Amino acid sequence: MSFYEPEHEFWRQTVRTFVRREVEPNVAAWERAGRIDPELWRKAAAQGLLGLSLPEEYGGGGEPDYRYRFIVMEELARVGAASVNAAFSLVDDLVGPYLLDLATDEQKKRLIPGLCDGTLTTAIAMTEPGAGSDLRGVRTLARQEGGDWVLNGSKTFITNGEHADFVVVLARSGEDDGKPRFSLFIVERGMPGFSSGTAMETIGRRGEAVSELFFDDVRVPGENVLGTVGRGFPHVMERLPKERMSIACYSLAIAEAAVNWTVGYTRERSAFGTPIAQFQHTKFGLAEMATEVDVTRAFIERSVLALNAGTLSPVEAAKAKWWASELAQRVIARCLQMHGGYGYTLEFPIARAFLDSRVQTIYGGTTEIMKEVIGRSLLA
Amino acid sequence: MSFYEPEHEFWRQTVRTFVRREVEPNVAAWERAGRIDPELWRKAAAQGLLGLSLPEEYGGGGEPDYRYRFIVMEELARVGAASVNAAFSLVDDLVGPYLLDLATDEQKKRLIPGLCDGTLTTAIAMTEPGAGSDLRGVRTLARQEGGDWVLNGSKTFITNGEHADFVVVLARSGEDDGKPRFSLFIVERGMPGFSSGTAMETIGRRGEAVSELFFDDVRVPGENVLGTVGRGFPHVMERLPKERMSIACYSLAIAEAAVNWTVGYTRERSAFGTPIAQFQHTKFGLAEMATEVDVTRAFIERSVLALNAGTLSPVEAAKAKWWASELAQRVIARCLQMHGGYGYTLEFPIARAFLDSRVQTIYGGTTEIMKEVIGRSLLA
Amino acid sequence: MSFYEPEHEFWRQTVRTFVRREVEPNVAAWERAGRIDPELWRKAAAQGLLGLSLPEEYGGGGEPDYRYRFIVMEELARVGAASVNAAFSLVDDLVGPYLLDLATDEQKKRLIPGLCDGTLTTAIAMTEPGAGSDLRGVRTLARQEGGDWVLNGSKTFITNGEHADFVVVLARSGEDDGKPRFSLFIVERGMPGFSSGTAMETIGRRGEAVSELFFDDVRVPGENVLGTVGRGFPHVMERLPKERMSIACYSLAIAEAAVNWTVGYTRERSAFGTPIAQFQHTKFGLAEMATEVDVTRAFIERSVLALNAGTLSPVEAAKAKWWASELAQRVIARCLQMHGGYGYTLEFPIARAFLDSRVQTIYGGTTEIMKEVIGRSLLA
Amino acid sequence: MSFYEPEHEFWRQTVRTFVRREVEPNVAAWERAGRIDPELWRKAAAQGLLGLSLPEEYGGGGEPDYRYRFIVMEELARVGAASVNAAFSLVDDLVGPYLLDLATDEQKKRLIPGLCDGTLTTAIAMTEPGAGSDLRGVRTLARQEGGDWVLNGSKTFITNGEHADFVVVLARSGEDDGKPRFSLFIVERGMPGFSSGTAMETIGRRGEAVSELFFDDVRVPGENVLGTVGRGFPHVMERLPKERMSIACYSLAIAEAAVNWTVGYTRERSAFGTPIAQFQHTKFGLAEMATEVDVTRAFIERSVLALNAGTLSPVEAAKAKWWASELAQRVIARCLQMHGGYGYTLEFPIARAFLDSRVQTIYGGTTEIMKEVIGRSLLA
Repeated sequence: MSFYEPEHEFWRQTVRTFVRREVEPNVAAWERAGRIDPELWRKAAAQGLLGLSLPEEYGGGGEPDYRYRFIVMEELARVGAASVNAAFSLVDDLVGPYLLDLATDEQKKRLIPGLCDGTLTTAIAMTEPGAGSDLRGVRTLARQEGGDWVLNGSKTFITNGEHADFVVVLARSGEDDGKPRFSLFIVERGMPGFSSGTAMETIGRRGEAVSELFFDDVRVPGENVLGTVGRGFPHVMERLPKERMSIACYSLAIAEAAVNWTVGYTRERSAFGTPIAQFQHTKFGLAEMATEVDVTRAFIERSVLALNAGTLSPVEAAKAKWWASELAQRVIARCLQMHGGYGYTLEFPIARAFLDSRVQTIYGGTTEIMKEVIGRSLLA
Repeated sequence: MSFYEPEHEFWRQTVRTFVRREVEPNVAAWERAGRIDPELWRKAAAQGLLGLSLPEEYGGGGEPDYRYRFIVMEELARVGAASVNAAFSLVDDLVGPYLLDLATDEQKKRLIPGLCDGTLTTAIAMTEPGAGSDLRGVRTLARQEGGDWVLNGSKTFITNGEHADFVVVLARSGEDDGKPRFSLFIVERGMPGFSSGTAMETIGRRGEAVSELFFDDVRVPGENVLGTVGRGFPHVMERLPKERMSIACYSLAIAEAAVNWTVGYTRERSAFGTPIAQFQHTKFGLAEMATEVDVTRAFIERSVLALNAGTLSPVEAAKAKWWASELAQRVIARCLQMHGGYGYTLEFPIARAFLDSRVQTIYGGTTEIMKEVIGRSLLA
Repeated sequence: MSFYEPEHEFWRQTVRTFVRREVEPNVAAWERAGRIDPELWRKAAAQGLLGLSLPEEYGGGGEPDYRYRFIVMEELARVGAASVNAAFSLVDDLVGPYLLDLATDEQKKRLIPGLCDGTLTTAIAMTEPGAGSDLRGVRTLARQEGGDWVLNGSKTFITNGEHADFVVVLARSGEDDGKPRFSLFIVERGMPGFSSGTAMETIGRRGEAVSELFFDDVRVPGENVLGTVGRGFPHVMERLPKERMSIACYSLAIAEAAVNWTVGYTRERSAFGTPIAQFQHTKFGLAEMATEVDVTRAFIERSVLALNAGTLSPVEAAKAKWWASELAQRVIARCLQMHGGYGYTLEFPIARAFLDSRVQTIYGGTTEIMKEVIGRSLLA
Repeated sequence: MSFYEPEHEFWRQTVRTFVRREVEPNVAAWERAGRIDPELWRKAAAQGLLGLSLPEEYGGGGEPDYRYRFIVMEELARVGAASVNAAFSLVDDLVGPYLLDLATDEQKKRLIPGLCDGTLTTAIAMTEPGAGSDLRGVRTLARQEGGDWVLNGSKTFITNGEHADFVVVLARSGEDDGKPRFSLFIVERGMPGFSSGTAMETIGRRGEAVSELFFDDVRVPGENVLGTVGRGFPHVMERLPKERMSIACYSLAIAEAAVNWTVGYTRERSAFGTPIAQFQHTKFGLAEMATEVDVTRAFIERSVLALNAGTLSPVEAAKAKWWASELAQRVIARCLQMHGGYGYTLEFPIARAFLDSRVQTIYGGTTEIMKEVIGRSLLA
């Protein structure tokens, strides 16, 4: 009845060793530099950490069980490496699943091996300056010319946009019955007319920064269409639950990490001659957070098993996403406060978690969009 | 992977039919009268609803799976019958388990059949006027005289205390190494010196009222000691997790019922020409509550399975108890507000749920005691 | 710079003496009986407590300073007499101001003296079964016949509706440019076709109960029109800020009373050998509530002075109303919890405050309506 | 009855002009550089913005009315210049008042003119690595040698510590009756053995960074003792209310600014074809925040007037401090969320406010210390 089985815990040891050796000592420096050393991807690939669910024939792990991916998140959260997780997420939760389900054999052969061996980095570009969570407001235009498509427009808040070797782009590709139709395109670094802004100055996660992308008459060959022309919107909708679960899982993992750091800190640190953890206000606060986190874990575990079974509904994913991401912010803010002045300095992981977690209730669909999705289902 | 299996749902039909016919039409009258018609217990017994987990040889259901009991709670919550559930709980979650684990064969033979056929009602008496959640503060004294025990003292907030045919009483029965020792006694209605106050005027649940009990030189024969002399305190401690889970389960059930009533109400009721449920504030509120309730259900289900497996820890039970009971109050208060003025009248079940649920964060160990239990475990 | 001046404190002594002698010993009995002994109004009148702001020539206090009324609320709140305050409020915050501003001399002469000497009781009837906070949904119809008006329809949730000698009724009296027009009518007890339902079973305040009112071809003479025909809606709108401030003031007063009761209780009551108030969780909770209450008092005092000066805006009143009434519920719920099991019994005033306060976020315009009013002003 | 009088509003124009011209265009660059251009202090001094309450004979404004200082905060908050305000605060709320009340004439003559003309910057050093809010835990030792004092120890989280020309230092200077006694010392940049760490990497306010300070046999002449030897602790205690009010005032100001930015943003920005502000959830959220901020303003204004009158109690200041600083964090977090992805980028002032405000519930005494102070007063 336990969520993790022995083979998962075995995997955790591999991940933990890698994270301790390659990630933990470098997080602060990468955040300051605004970029994770790309060498990390080769090392991660060597340990089999990239492309867990992608096909073995293309160098992936061939493992559809999402618990393995969840363990990667838990171990990264333990050292506060949100940017690194975001990069893994691009491969395993976002672009990977799109390629797995929608790509032609040729596309798979061309792109997946690089993702899995860490030689290609990727991005996915939905959001536009004029349209946040409202994807139907996408204005980037793809005009067909012969067998090619010519893209014009711009995207914003694109994680790894500045450095990605290829980007999956949602664009408006025509109309049907007066309604806009969208398609997905694989745009490659170096294609004429495709450029990116520099990293945006954000509250957190500067190691895996977000950028604007610009498309100025970018000519994309027909073989770079991903999935079916005109079905970009349903292609995206169908993959949202997995994306949202990935945010929910990381949110839970970072909340658990925060509570653990804080239990440790408040037991060691004294005020007025007593360990802080012994003050009733602190003790009750820790008890409240331990409860919230455990309660949430039961729900997330259930949802992950549903994701594995292919039965996770969009409404369930929406619940997991907003609940866990709001939980993370609430818990981290309280934990930070329990650290006193030290919580305000980036020497303690709680401070970085505070910065890095702020985006979680916004990206992948805001909390408000999630409530809209859930509310609509209640009234259907 | 579903929590309930077909045989549970079959049981639900039995329970629902009974509740709809025998309970729902009478709840308001019983609350007004301050007493549930005792005839109900005979009828419930006839349907096998009493003593689910008590041995078949004594007339019980012989079914240790707590999911059957949970279904009874869910069906009673659906019609807002908290007092009725409290009476069932005395048999199935409180006194029943004590008898099952601690009673002698003679005691079982004497008491369990009456509980299961609805001819005996019972109560359990821990709390005293001077000691709330602090059971070590119990002052009721049991003095040994020959083979008998003579009890003096008083108890308060005793559910069904006024009408119970027998009461399990915790009393101080001696000292060991300077520390008080406690024992459990079965005190029977009609024993000289044993009396009860009338029903206390409480916020809710007046159908199954609480009373004070007085013990004035009550002579209790030795064969009415329950369990081991001097081990009353551990006897109680070991049974707390089940009691707390029962409160957690009912709390979740009533919260779910409240959300369902409110979804129904706000869809039917209009303001300014629009169904209330369509106002974004209402819709988001419903979405938030639906999420909270679902998240909590995952945790409670996991805890119920652990209870079944005998692996539920006191800390887990404490988490379930405070979290679910606070959830219920939070959800019910919001749902009531969504009913507007109608939520303030007892014609709508949400109003009675508001009254009946207030005690849930207090009895069976307050929220604060639960946090103490959890907090201590974190710092151990 | 102090809010109260010496003459206010002098008045407080009069009020306190009255409340201690005439109100406090009887509150529980009146609530149980479902009616305040009408003799109380004669006694209150004798002390000058009724009709504070009504003209001296008609037996009122002639005192427009609302601080005197606020003191009456504070003293009633201290003994948990919400029903009694509701009755005073009918005279001083609701019907009184309508008569003062809108009544003809004849109407004043006829009605105000009785209000001020306690021989007449009154009610105000806006809400209808099909329309809660949405007054434009009022369906009660007034049809002109000669110099009379004939009323048909019904009202609900009318405080003192069962016993009132006269009721101010809002009805639809015609149309103008396709929009409904409303007027106010004074309907008197005993007019043929006018009847009331019995007291509704509500969560609290049963001493001054709410009822339904029915109008079945009730013929109301033209001299019973209050204010200008067709201007009923603006008449009501203009008086809402005062009504809402009265709810805000009582809400603050009861929250302050609750904190005071709880400071007293937790200092006297011990658990595990220590006064409850010394537990850090309790101490911090009390500190939080003391702060919230003080912060709110500053705002309410400012608003009362604005009310006195005639400069209180509807938006300010809306802020005061929702904030203070939500504060009261939050504070009372926490204070009740700090009382443990005793907070659940009506022997302690905190329990009655819990029941009586529930309506405060609903009547006089729900919290949601207040937010609508405020939100609209921000976006104007 | 208005808080501000015409002369205050006149002053506001001066401040606003200065802030718009000299501060607003540079905030982002200063934060990135980790230091405010020191030239700013000369310019601010030229406008009379430094040393408002310090004596005119030493170049100050000679104006004890704290409303003038509050206006400076409001105008700095409007452009999100928390670091700049922190620097002003060092002069006007912290070191200035110490010098005004405790310094000898010689010390005043030596130090105040430089503070007021912007040629000297300062810091105040209380907190130590081993003792946060617990000042009695201060370990930095001052040993008397002849007429001098020799300091050893270290301080941490010292705003402007790296650049200050002189620092007011709290150190343990002896014992009395077995209890430690403390004194205040003016330590000057360049004194042998006195050094500072580099700026600490913090969540916000990097423009006016915090550093560690180290004292290694620093010889401080007797004329640099500030106030009375052995009375350092009461000297600090007496000045805490003003410091805490300054944090409360800035917290309110930044919360108000955040609401204003967000009203503006949500009115202009559309989603799904409608301005965000028109969505009920947003509108109600804005209404809630507008209320909270207004309610808090009433309290803060009352406290500022009490500060002016010399009647502000430490308990009142503690209430203002924790309430307003927690309000600011709550409001800013919600406002940020209403900005969607843009709230996550430092191009919008709400993001910087999120970072800069995090320290407000920690420094100057944490929220928990404030509750301790208030709680103790309730139980006295």
